[in-house]
Amino acid sequence: MVLLRVVPVSARPAAQCVSVSGGIGLPRTHGSVTLSRSVRSAMLTSLLAIGGSVRHLTSAARGAPCLVRHLSSGPGSPEPEDGRGRRAARLAALAAGAALAGSALWLAQQRRGRLTAVSAASSGQYGQRRADLPTFSMEEVSRHADVKERVWMTYHEGVYDVTDFVRQHPGGAAIMMGAGGSADPFWDLYAVHKEEHVLKLLERYRIGNVREDEVGSHRDGTDDPWAAEPRRHPALKPSSKTPFNAEPPPALLADNFLTPNDLFYVRNHLPVPVVDPSEYELEVDGVGVGGLTLSLEQLKRDFPAVTVTATVMCAGNRRSEMTQVKPVRGLFWGAAAVGNATWTGARLTDVLKAAGYDVNSGPGKHVCFEGLDTDPSSTPYGASIPLETAVDPRRDVILAYEMNGQPLSRDHGAPVRVIVPGVVGARNVKWLGRITVSDTESDSHWQHSDYKGFNPSVDWDTVDFSKSPAIQELPVNSAICWPAPGHTVKVKDGHVHVKGYAWSGGGQRIVRVDVTADGGATWHDMALTVEEAAPAGRCWSWCLWQGRVPVPPGATAAQLWVKATDASYNTQPETFKNIWNLRGVLSNAYHRVDVHLKRV
Amino acid sequence: MVLLRVVPVSARPAAQCVSVSGGIGLPRTHGSVTLSRSVRSAMLTSLLAIGGSVRHLTSAARGAPCLVRHLSSGPGSPEPEDGRGRRAARLAALAAGAALAGSALWLAQQRRGRLTAVSAASSGQYGQRRADLPTFSMEEVSRHADVKERVWMTYHEGVYDVTDFVRQHPGGAAIMMGAGGSADPFWDLYAVHKEEHVLKLLERYRIGNVREDEVGSHRDGTDDPWAAEPRRHPALKPSSKTPFNAEPPPALLADNFLTPNDLFYVRNHLPVPVVDPSEYELEVDGVGVGGLTLSLEQLKRDFPAVTVTATVMCAGNRRSEMTQVKPVRGLFWGAAAVGNATWTGARLTDVLKAAGYDVNSGPGKHVCFEGLDTDPSSTPYGASIPLETAVDPRRDVILAYEMNGQPLSRDHGAPVRVIVPGVVGARNVKWLGRITVSDTESDSHWQHSDYKGFNPSVDWDTVDFSKSPAIQELPVNSAICWPAPGHTVKVKDGHVHVKGYAWSGGGQRIVRVDVTADGGATWHDMALTVEEAAPAGRCWSWCLWQGRVPVPPGATAAQLWVKATDASYNTQPETFKNIWNLRGVLSNAYHRVDVHLKRV
Repeated sequence: MVLLRVVPVSARPAAQCVSVSGGIGLPRTHGSVTLSRSVRSAMLTSLLAIGGSVRHLTSAARGAPCLVRHLSSGPGSPEPEDGRGRRAARLAALAAGAALAGSALWLAQQRRGRLTAVSAASSGQYGQRRADLPTFSMEEVSRHADVKERVWMTYHEGVYDVTDFVRQHPGGAAIMMGAGGSADPFWDLYAVHKEEHVLKLLERYRIGNVREDEVGSHRDGTDDPWAAEPRRHPALKPSSKTPFNAEPPPALLADNFLTPNDLFYVRNHLPVPVVDPSEYELEVDGVGVGGLTLSLEQLKRDFPAVTVTATVMCAGNRRSEMTQVKPVRGLFWGAAAVGNATWTGARLTDVLKAAGYDVNSGPGKHVCFEGLDTDPSSTPYGASIPLETAVDPRRDVILAYEMNGQPLSRDHGAPVRVIVPGVVGARNVKWLGRITVSDTESDSHWQHSDYKGFNPSVDWDTVDFSKSPAIQELPVNSAICWPAPGHTVKVKDGHVHVKGYAWSGGGQRIVRVDVTADGGATWHDMALTVEEAAPAGRCWSWCLWQGRVPVPPGATAAQLWVKATDASYNTQPETFKNIWNLRGVLSNAYHRVDVHLKRV
Repeated sequence: MVLLRVVPVSARPAAQCVSVSGGIGLPRTHGSVTLSRSVRSAMLTSLLAIGGSVRHLTSAARGAPCLVRHLSSGPGSPEPEDGRGRRAARLAALAAGAALAGSALWLAQQRRGRLTAVSAASSGQYGQRRADLPTFSMEEVSRHADVKERVWMTYHEGVYDVTDFVRQHPGGAAIMMGAGGSADPFWDLYAVHKEEHVLKLLERYRIGNVREDEVGSHRDGTDDPWAAEPRRHPALKPSSKTPFNAEPPPALLADNFLTPNDLFYVRNHLPVPVVDPSEYELEVDGVGVGGLTLSLEQLKRDFPAVTVTATVMCAGNRRSEMTQVKPVRGLFWGAAAVGNATWTGARLTDVLKAAGYDVNSGPGKHVCFEGLDTDPSSTPYGASIPLETAVDPRRDVILAYEMNGQPLSRDHGAPVRVIVPGVVGARNVKWLGRITVSDTESDSHWQHSDYKGFNPSVDWDTVDFSKSPAIQELPVNSAICWPAPGHTVKVKDGHVHVKGYAWSGGGQRIVRVDVTADGGATWHDMALTVEEAAPAGRCWSWCLWQGRVPVPPGATAAQLWVKATDASYNTQPETFKNIWNLRGVLSNAYHRVDVHLKRV
């Protein structure tokens, strides 16, 4: 099977540019080509030609030219052009819009308020052969891969014409990855599709059956991408199993200044790659870089090991609260998509210097990180940080191979991940395969068309991802970890005991945590556990807090609120209403927990 | 007249420690002594012995030991001990609590909602000779300078026993500066006392008259501290005339990315010093510093001149909005206690290096700045910033001698002031006389017992200033500069035109400004004017914004709200209720402006 990968020109020797075959619905191209991001974007637009609903992809029109190159799944030369080759090219072109993991959740939540898993029994009825419909060959299906020719795809034994659904797809243009072929691999990859009403919705577009001898042919040459997932601690509560995304019980967080590795939240975007540490290679390239490839052993041996204590938080942490105002797209995270650990590794600046880069006055504006985790089109996870952050020794950016004194586990990026203290989890790229100094941001979907904030009036019809900057440092945030919502808590001497965490991005120390049990009539300072040794502006760790809060006399229930204030005296917004955003990121309004009170 | 100055031990050669005379009510000391801050604080406490109301002074108990030294007002040796000498010692000891400028405003607002100037005619009745009361000599008055002996003071021709008012004084222990002598100089210095009801309150404590031949004797040897104030632009609207504090019309701000020098807000804490540029000297000393004295000419000639565009904002900007929730102590600032300018000067790091300080690994934790402006006890204005901020080349701290290409004006700190980009105005010390690297923060009142944030439940009876960090970087903020509150604005095609500024401390770029005219039902992105060239995290300038906002159909009035979001995606709190603090600082809730609408 032919796979394609989109990479920045600046990062690749020209020799790596090999033949590419144009996709169905794209201008046909043969031989070696260079596709700029704007061309790729224009292709998308012309492919879809469906107006406003793909406007959020136009951000891909900015930035560096890209190469589309073949990557063969096995040894040997690129395969000849055929239906699969064309499809692969299309996959690559669409990769930027690929991975709105969790997007169907939006639909689910909108309709039913929460996720309901589809049982094997109930899902069986969808995609099964129907005697009342005609049969099509996969070749015939492959001729319907754009809006002009209608968009067909298959699921199990069924053939579907989803043309009229394309513009409504919550995941945007990602749906086109299945056009003219089987949607099964994507259904498997993005587990949020496994909803009964999503399947029911699909079935509305049913037009026929797949020729019997071709059912399952999409599996040829591929393995189940989830077959090699690691085992997880049973206490982790998944918001998605494939990709695996899970958080620990919140109370556990407040009891451990350093979050135990096995209970540290996991946010994967793609299947966990299988990486043999003895064969691991880290490539360093880009503008102003001589070029360097490091083994894990070299990374450990040739660079001073530094240890940084840093909190990592998902941009979507506490999304489940924001979605109560109005549904948002994304995983249903509680307040525990955050953890604090010591990370040990080599300084990014040291590695850049070793690669010949002048960290004081070298060129470029961004440092891009590429993971070894890839989607079905072999596009890796990617992200970037501003050069200023990367080369500033005060920012303590490291390439970590240890977490709390243990080698990184597979779920946390083994053997090497980036730790960018104070910066959103999405830029702390796991399974790090490549570092590229660049004039432009990472061209990954996650940098350009996800993990950005918008005002509450921007919706999926009006959003223009190019208009907002990629989230880097996160705003000040806090949560009550104990008591849990709905719990009955003991009132002693008129007080209840409350505990939780607080953190602010960019190294801003938390200077105060206030809790109220009377709607803000009185606020009470909590006792803080902080990393005292951290210099001003380099407090990368969260603080844990706890204290006693008076409850109104005679009350049998109370709502506890917490807000934190950081060293810049930034504090949290009161409610989610005016910070609501369509992706449900940056959820940092006051955390409010309803409890029952029991006097003792 | 003998004046005293409290300075950090670390900053002074021992030879500068000269004789000191203990004040009335203090343990009598003779000869050369070193008074630690804790001793000074303990003296205050024992002096006042009045319990909770001086708790906010106990913060002075922290930190470095201090010297109390004589500074003669004229040439010659220290004067012999006498009533004045004792008084001067007490003044020095009390200097830390001295300058709660504006504190009586709190009382004024609490009682009457706003300031009312005292006319010469109406104020005349207070402090005049009364035939029904006995007469006292100043010597007799001077024996009543502590709580044990009762606290007496004079005002004009009257003698007052204010013992029972001491603990209620809104300015805290500063009242003791007048104990046993004349309160007139302080009445003159802190213009907020010039309120009819404040004078009426004073008159309640009247016990007698000053001996006729001693009336006005406090003026011996002193000049009117305000005689040398510079002329100001008539468009500046004062919130206090002595010290001069004034802001321009807000609309003017939004029309000028660089605020004109003459219209830049002025926040003085003390009289503007008269400094001859040709005799100006800047001292550099402290831990790890060899010592250096620079003339203005040397500062300009020996160090590269760098220009930084930076916004300076008062911590009390927009206090007048916060005070509407509940009265606070402080000047009645509108939304224009902020301005943006280019500043040219020498890098602080270059000057520290020239003074022999190792900016990469030198000792100390803070860099203290001392102004040439002094209070009646010769205590200078002072402030400090963390060493990390001072020595980080990315923080662009400069010793500025030009503002928008012109030499600094007197009101803005001529000939040299510190510019600490991204940091509250209070640390951008004007009339800079001394730079001291220290293990502790500046021991000035303004660093320890002012310019700090607290939660809304902390009041003047419970506040402990030692519990909060000194404000450095300010939180994200914004304001509508046009239309003004109460104005009638034209509605064109259903929209009104709105403009203003937004800024965030710490170099965080403003990434979005949202305005609503319908209570947050719809939010509208404004067009931003920003300093594009600023690198990430070093955007020291504000942004100006403007745009068209739809108003509800048929409405004849609307309330406009603005909120800004910075690069950390921190945003403003919705209301003042939950960020209220007793000093009325950090007023960054949504700015809300009521306007009338006129359709055209």
